[in-house]
Amino acid sequence: MSEGFATRVAAAVATTGPLCAGIDPNRQLLADWGLDDTPAGLRTFGLRCVEAFASVVPVVKPQVAFFERMGAAGLAVLEEVLGACRDAGLLVIADAKRGDIGSTMDAYAEAWLDPTSPLAADAVTCVAYLGLGALQPALDLAAAGGKGVIVVVRSSNPEGRPLQEARTLATAGDGPGAAVEDMLLGEIADLNHGGLPVAGTVGAVIGATLEPSSFDLSGLGGVILAPGIGAQGGTAAGAGALFAGCPAGTVLPSASRSLLAHGPDAGALRAAAAAECEAMARALG
Amino acid sequence: MSEGFATRVAAAVATTGPLCAGIDPNRQLLADWGLDDTPAGLRTFGLRCVEAFASVVPVVKPQVAFFERMGAAGLAVLEEVLGACRDAGLLVIADAKRGDIGSTMDAYAEAWLDPTSPLAADAVTCVAYLGLGALQPALDLAAAGGKGVIVVVRSSNPEGRPLQEARTLATAGDGPGAAVEDMLLGEIADLNHGGLPVAGTVGAVIGATLEPSSFDLSGLGGVILAPGIGAQGGTAAGAGALFAGCPAGTVLPSASRSLLAHGPDAGALRAAAAAECEAMARALG
Repeated sequence: MSEGFATRVAAAVATTGPLCAGIDPNRQLLADWGLDDTPAGLRTFGLRCVEAFASVVPVVKPQVAFFERMGAAGLAVLEEVLGACRDAGLLVIADAKRGDIGSTMDAYAEAWLDPTSPLAADAVTCVAYLGLGALQPALDLAAAGGKGVIVVVRSSNPEGRPLQEARTLATAGDGPGAAVEDMLLGEIADLNHGGLPVAGTVGAVIGATLEPSSFDLSGLGGVILAPGIGAQGGTAAGAGALFAGCPAGTVLPSASRSLLAHGPDAGALRAAAAAECEAMARALG
Repeated sequence: MSEGFATRVAAAVATTGPLCAGIDPNRQLLADWGLDDTPAGLRTFGLRCVEAFASVVPVVKPQVAFFERMGAAGLAVLEEVLGACRDAGLLVIADAKRGDIGSTMDAYAEAWLDPTSPLAADAVTCVAYLGLGALQPALDLAAAGGKGVIVVVRSSNPEGRPLQEARTLATAGDGPGAAVEDMLLGEIADLNHGGLPVAGTVGAVIGATLEPSSFDLSGLGGVILAPGIGAQGGTAAGAGALFAGCPAGTVLPSASRSLLAHGPDAGALRAAAAAECEAMARALG
């Protein structure tokens, strides 16, 4: 049995400090880097990121949409970038936000978590609108391979709050049940504490710009991916306050646009990533 | 300005009857059809479906996960299948269940709804865990091109119910707000009735196996995609009762496994699709 995803992340964070560096070749950043809006431009961008981030950050997060935008040719570039990440020893979270049911979810799990898949990553982000239970094929495959499933719980954008704060119906008694986000966090904690054969398999995406919910994140038992640092207004100090009490190496603040603005020079990008990692290490203790 | 997606669907349904035929080349069906679990097998399966369904059903729904499972090679096959659908005059809903925010959502919208994309479809399924407002880039691009965004609202699987039935917080007054699913349906109706420049742009996925919610679906103003027919227990009569009052041509019951079990012979598959379309036309009046 492999060690769990959270253990692998904590080991990497212990070496470099805690940061998830986005690989987000959107149209604007391609232009800013002087690259063509083509698969070739995408490839240069992605491989430059890997060169810059290797050994400096523990985890990278390619945003699948920016590759999918160019169809099969874009996905072929993503396969190459994922291979370069593996060769560089970077842990990879594929930011795909997939979610479905039954044999369809089997297929998404296989695409992103099967070690023999051309798109194999160390973890994949998933959406649980169809219920966390619907993600079971991904949870099982992740646990079997020491990989992770990171479930979107609290987004950093305001449009998501009404749904995420909605109250589930109480299963017994009179009052309302938990908020949707807290229901999911509770289910994730249960999976990490005995619900799956490998602890630390399931993580949560929790925006770094939000006030805490009523759920005690220190007991989640999995990785917390916290987007919103930089361009969306999140700060290292804010992340430190929001995730106080969480075990060392379990919180991954995620920076994308603010970091990638330091490109296209790989050296400048590497220096910015190292500085951000150091700031996060101080803030998160 | 193009005519809206709902208008295009209604015109197609008027010719053939209402049915969305799934193109679901999962591992089991590939084996059942005597095809290899390879991109070549995927290609034969997909093109056979197009051959069988052309002129018999109004809409097909390729399940993206089964192509993504094979990485870039799988997506190249999907591009070819989508092209064959266009040539055959079939409307295509790409069942991708995508959902994100900002420039990431821009990229997903472009991948599936930009007419120049290699993956261009007539509509794409999306998930609104991050809020319906986060899907705005897809809504705008769809409206501009007479295409559709079909939002997953009520899934046919039981694991999704606690989230979908959760009560949003009331914006004023004392009592609880609408259920998450009814909030989304209300927002979709608003978009179809003036919120977007083209009526009928936004649809909803509503499982054909469920009891009605409190929302009056006859006023949705967009396409209802209703999975769960056949293998998941939904029937034509049940769909007729659930969607009574919805305007003609707006409800698309969706059948996948139960229909595809009639392959690999294209003639047998075509006959089964025609029979199902006829049954649905009777049930939905």
